[in-house]
Amino acid sequence: MEKLIKGLRQFQSNYFDTHHELFEQLAHGQKPRVLFITCSDSRVDPNLITNAKVGELFVIRNAGNMIPPYGATNGGEGAALEYAVQALGIDQIIVCGHSNCGAMKGLLKLDKLREEMPLVYDWLLQAEATRRLVKENYSTLSGEELLNITIAENVLTQIENLRTYPVIHSKIRQGKLSLNAWVYQIDTGSVFAYDATRHEYVAPASPLQPLDPEELLPPSPGHPASWLSP
Amino acid sequence: MEKLIKGLRQFQSNYFDTHHELFEQLAHGQKPRVLFITCSDSRVDPNLITNAKVGELFVIRNAGNMIPPYGATNGGEGAALEYAVQALGIDQIIVCGHSNCGAMKGLLKLDKLREEMPLVYDWLLQAEATRRLVKENYSTLSGEELLNITIAENVLTQIENLRTYPVIHSKIRQGKLSLNAWVYQIDTGSVFAYDATRHEYVAPASPLQPLDPEELLPPSPGHPASWLSP
Amino acid sequence: MEKLIKGLRQFQSNYFDTHHELFEQLAHGQKPRVLFITCSDSRVDPNLITNAKVGELFVIRNAGNMIPPYGATNGGEGAALEYAVQALGIDQIIVCGHSNCGAMKGLLKLDKLREEMPLVYDWLLQAEATRRLVKENYSTLSGEELLNITIAENVLTQIENLRTYPVIHSKIRQGKLSLNAWVYQIDTGSVFAYDATRHEYVAPASPLQPLDPEELLPPSPGHPASWLSP
Amino acid sequence: MEKLIKGLRQFQSNYFDTHHELFEQLAHGQKPRVLFITCSDSRVDPNLITNAKVGELFVIRNAGNMIPPYGATNGGEGAALEYAVQALGIDQIIVCGHSNCGAMKGLLKLDKLREEMPLVYDWLLQAEATRRLVKENYSTLSGEELLNITIAENVLTQIENLRTYPVIHSKIRQGKLSLNAWVYQIDTGSVFAYDATRHEYVAPASPLQPLDPEELLPPSPGHPASWLSP
Amino acid sequence: MEKLIKGLRQFQSNYFDTHHELFEQLAHGQKPRVLFITCSDSRVDPNLITNAKVGELFVIRNAGNMIPPYGATNGGEGAALEYAVQALGIDQIIVCGHSNCGAMKGLLKLDKLREEMPLVYDWLLQAEATRRLVKENYSTLSGEELLNITIAENVLTQIENLRTYPVIHSKIRQGKLSLNAWVYQIDTGSVFAYDATRHEYVAPASPLQPLDPEELLPPSPGHPASWLSP
Amino acid sequence: MEKLIKGLRQFQSNYFDTHHELFEQLAHGQKPRVLFITCSDSRVDPNLITNAKVGELFVIRNAGNMIPPYGATNGGEGAALEYAVQALGIDQIIVCGHSNCGAMKGLLKLDKLREEMPLVYDWLLQAEATRRLVKENYSTLSGEELLNITIAENVLTQIENLRTYPVIHSKIRQGKLSLNAWVYQIDTGSVFAYDATRHEYVAPASPLQPLDPEELLPPSPGHPASWLSP
Ligand SMILES: [Zn+2]
Ligand SMILES: [Zn+2]
Ligand SMILES: [Zn+2]
Ligand SMILES: [Zn+2]
Ligand SMILES: [Zn+2]
Ligand SMILES: [Zn+2]
Repeated sequence: MEKLIKGLRQFQSNYFDTHHELFEQLAHGQKPRVLFITCSDSRVDPNLITNAKVGELFVIRNAGNMIPPYGATNGGEGAALEYAVQALGIDQIIVCGHSNCGAMKGLLKLDKLREEMPLVYDWLLQAEATRRLVKENYSTLSGEELLNITIAENVLTQIENLRTYPVIHSKIRQGKLSLNAWVYQIDTGSVFAYDATRHEYVAPASPLQPLDPEELLPPSPGHPASWLSP
Repeated sequence: MEKLIKGLRQFQSNYFDTHHELFEQLAHGQKPRVLFITCSDSRVDPNLITNAKVGELFVIRNAGNMIPPYGATNGGEGAALEYAVQALGIDQIIVCGHSNCGAMKGLLKLDKLREEMPLVYDWLLQAEATRRLVKENYSTLSGEELLNITIAENVLTQIENLRTYPVIHSKIRQGKLSLNAWVYQIDTGSVFAYDATRHEYVAPASPLQPLDPEELLPPSPGHPASWLSP
Repeated sequence: MEKLIKGLRQFQSNYFDTHHELFEQLAHGQKPRVLFITCSDSRVDPNLITNAKVGELFVIRNAGNMIPPYGATNGGEGAALEYAVQALGIDQIIVCGHSNCGAMKGLLKLDKLREEMPLVYDWLLQAEATRRLVKENYSTLSGEELLNITIAENVLTQIENLRTYPVIHSKIRQGKLSLNAWVYQIDTGSVFAYDATRHEYVAPASPLQPLDPEELLPPSPGHPASWLSP
Repeated sequence: MEKLIKGLRQFQSNYFDTHHELFEQLAHGQKPRVLFITCSDSRVDPNLITNAKVGELFVIRNAGNMIPPYGATNGGEGAALEYAVQALGIDQIIVCGHSNCGAMKGLLKLDKLREEMPLVYDWLLQAEATRRLVKENYSTLSGEELLNITIAENVLTQIENLRTYPVIHSKIRQGKLSLNAWVYQIDTGSVFAYDATRHEYVAPASPLQPLDPEELLPPSPGHPASWLSP
Repeated sequence: MEKLIKGLRQFQSNYFDTHHELFEQLAHGQKPRVLFITCSDSRVDPNLITNAKVGELFVIRNAGNMIPPYGATNGGEGAALEYAVQALGIDQIIVCGHSNCGAMKGLLKLDKLREEMPLVYDWLLQAEATRRLVKENYSTLSGEELLNITIAENVLTQIENLRTYPVIHSKIRQGKLSLNAWVYQIDTGSVFAYDATRHEYVAPASPLQPLDPEELLPPSPGHPASWLSP
Repeated sequence: MEKLIKGLRQFQSNYFDTHHELFEQLAHGQKPRVLFITCSDSRVDPNLITNAKVGELFVIRNAGNMIPPYGATNGGEGAALEYAVQALGIDQIIVCGHSNCGAMKGLLKLDKLREEMPLVYDWLLQAEATRRLVKENYSTLSGEELLNITIAENVLTQIENLRTYPVIHSKIRQGKLSLNAWVYQIDTGSVFAYDATRHEYVAPASPLQPLDPEELLPPSPGHPASWLSP
């Protein structure tokens, strides 16, 4: 904790001091362009990996970067995304999973969590669509390969869930919102984006063709979704 | 979006390149010491304001940095904190509100949200304890002063809510967990921590006496909770 | 009621008598090929309009032919479709709306229902994605034209909701399930099927190209979804 | 699917053509007299077995023809029946179970469903009143005999559940609504109606004495409820 | 509070002292015969008005002596009655309303409670069956007469709700459980019991014919349910 | 039942007769000073053990004297306490557990209840905070000693839960509400009150210093909470 306290002062005397104009401006309101949904994992720092400045990313973080379907939960996820799209007019949503995700590991051995961590267990039931798909479609995989597929598929599941939210359902029809599926690989620092046309995760090229949400389709049958597949 | 893509590369060629040993190490697991609960607001960057390194903060972010009482919601909040305390062994929790918070502004004009943003409305009903307390105890305030009190009180409400979670309830009795109430002020870059003994928010001194959760009491009657009160 | 009783006997002495072998066979189990989801409306008779025989259609009927997203409700809808896909191995799902639908009329004047029919009101909140889309995208329409669009869009909303169910999510990836959006027009006895390629409802040609669920996309922005548009 | 498409045309050129006046009339509104609640099972066709014309039966269909008690679920069941009684003024409700019902078979081996079909499992928990009654009162039965009793009792359970709905509770007191318990036997094409006075299911005589809902009592203790008992 | 503390001592030196054998016996377990469900109202003391000894009444008390239908709520009501019937083997249940009930007054002016007492409001929505019945059947009444009818009808509503609970549903069929509807009138100290045969509340005669729950029917149409009707 | 009927008459001819003025006065309204929350157990009679007169105690009774956190349940508990504090202006709340409590026994062998008493099981999950604390902090205890600690701790858990209710959260800040933790020991007829300063249950002395809710702290780590500890 002392370290954190010290950090507060370092922030103020360094970063804040050299950017005080930005902060004064931000004090009156935020104007982010992107809703960034990612895991609570301490190794994922949205601003760091995107090099985004303060004020650019509206962020939702929970275990497993999950957004259950509209109406399924009454936690903070739905409110935050409704606020982002409706009140802030955000037109880009990124769901960003990450390698070595503890939540996805938990999803692969769900029964063991019921007793010891009942809230985690209940929450992961919300990813049943991911779990079932992986179980029925990738039964030959195991270990890290299985985990990676689960992480990659889970992000796509959340994209489908997002489409059931009224604000998103409507904005997509108006062509005013793009949904993006990302996976961040910790050991290489790379990010992969799902390319709906090629049905695979790719390194986002520049200029990245904005993913038209109407074309964000799941991969074709049998096609592994992992960003690591050759 | 192009800017973000460019940022991904900048991150990799700059920060990642100079810290690649840290990332290799982190690739095998996280070991954060602090659960940091804060708002989705784009102007609040937990790692930035605490100068914390990647891997140090496990982060929950939603609109209004709220943790409803145990059992009240089935969103990601409960799972993430259970995972933090039970699986990761985290022993420090910080709830960090912030100035100019849109969620707290919404709480002060709740009825107007019902039609346009029903999910935000429903979520803010979870802060009814804050709303009622403010309405009944600070009826003379208005404007920014009212907003600041609401922000400050709301953090304390969440601290009370946290205590109803089984993992927290038990760990507190064992003296193994500290709960901390913070408010971050955007225009000055300062953070204020609630001092239970003095019943007010203060600039955290170093060495900061870790807040014993058993002494984290609400301010005495009539005592304003704002960090801005003279 | 007397009429119904008389009908029971007529059925037995006429239809049953001439088909008793079929019924004997069916007595040991059902083997339907299609899950037919339609409105409770008395004017929609699934077997009649498809000329399907007893045993061919597994049927879910409620007000407005709605299937809320996975996890949003705990009524019979989810169980029936899970049973259809998982236990019966059904590989075709049809959601069939209809003209002059009372539920969709209700959706267009929702507030009036809150007091008099609270359960209908609550149920129609599950079609908020339809309501919002119609409100924001077809604000110039009114009367029957508005109703028709609402009916047509609502069927597409349900198709999106269906995709969030684990059994469906997984079967679609395996290419083993097709989702079909239909509207039945009472006064002409015609049925229109949504053609994802053309982004409109069309009279289903024979041989009808089975709708690949991966291509079941909503119409492009601004394109009216009604089956009646020229 | 091709068969269905062909059926659509056959319907239009045959049945619709000879009844087009009826359909034109129905196009402006429905006026059903009966709410028919039955199973999604493909072998149960309400209009066929009652020889009812299009427009005569308002129909709810789910797995097991169940209507959980008022407030217990938020699916389509409550809304449809509220609409039927309140908006359409329907004064007769029939709950119709059927022989060889898959849902009732599932109820008798509930634990086996938990893993494979969790939504079916959860839905059948709503029939716990039936399950417990059967388990405690018919412990000596097994096989088809047990299944038949379960089917018969389950219909009576739903009748009790119906009475808890406000619109029904009130209309019954006014003597304006009758509740009827039916079971349809597939292999013989017969329907049996519960006779509250005799405490057994009987072939409905004509003129059938309309079942006064105030007299719709469960059978006396020890008396088997099956329609097949000698 | 001091008065209460003094009372604790008076109890110990008076009542307890003269009944210490009873208390020693009770210390090892309870064996009540009756489940008594009544209002939280301070003027209703179950043991006092029935002259029952300690250990004779298992008691549920909430605002309005309500037991919502099975599955509708997850509060303590269902658990307490399940425990009473299943674990303690209780075979008599009494639901006891009372004159001048604040909860029933609230039910008659429900909208006014929404803002000020949202939890009371939500809870009274569980008595919608009572509210609707009274509104539609007793529209000519007002004032105390209306309140008395509401109180009397509400007890009958709870009796119907009780029947949907699995443990009760099953025990009733076995003839092992009786359900009783009572109203206690404060100013006269009298209790009235609902007589299903006569369809009215009467002074319970001795020997009171135990109310066969299978005959516990609501009054016939138009018949006022109040215990005060001439 | 006959005994109860006889009791009704004894009450009227004895107690009521000698106190009829009190009852006439009470007939117009209640004015209790204390909200008394206790177990449904037949051996706990609030008015008897406190020697309180009719009209003095507003009473909530359920299995285990539990008040789940705000929002966690929709049963009668929240409504009754909101009514007590808001409508009746009650300023003292007592949660009173008792020795030999069946609900707390159930909590210590929770898994065994899942099948036989599912509603009791679900309700006791609401006491998970108590269960976990006891399991992790008193692992060396067993038998009656373990039960007593569980009873004592459970009352303190409810006190924490109470603090999350908006009406209570606000009134506490105003210094207008006191929360009291009691345990009633059946075989001795004694009541113990939790003394926050001493971190133990003590015999309430007179004048009992009203427990300031802001000081109602859980015992320090390792300190047994039982009222029976030497
Ligand atoms: Zn993760
Ligand atoms: Zn904020
Ligand atoms: Zn319809
Ligand atoms: Zn069936
Ligand atoms: Zn009352
Ligand atoms: Zn107890």
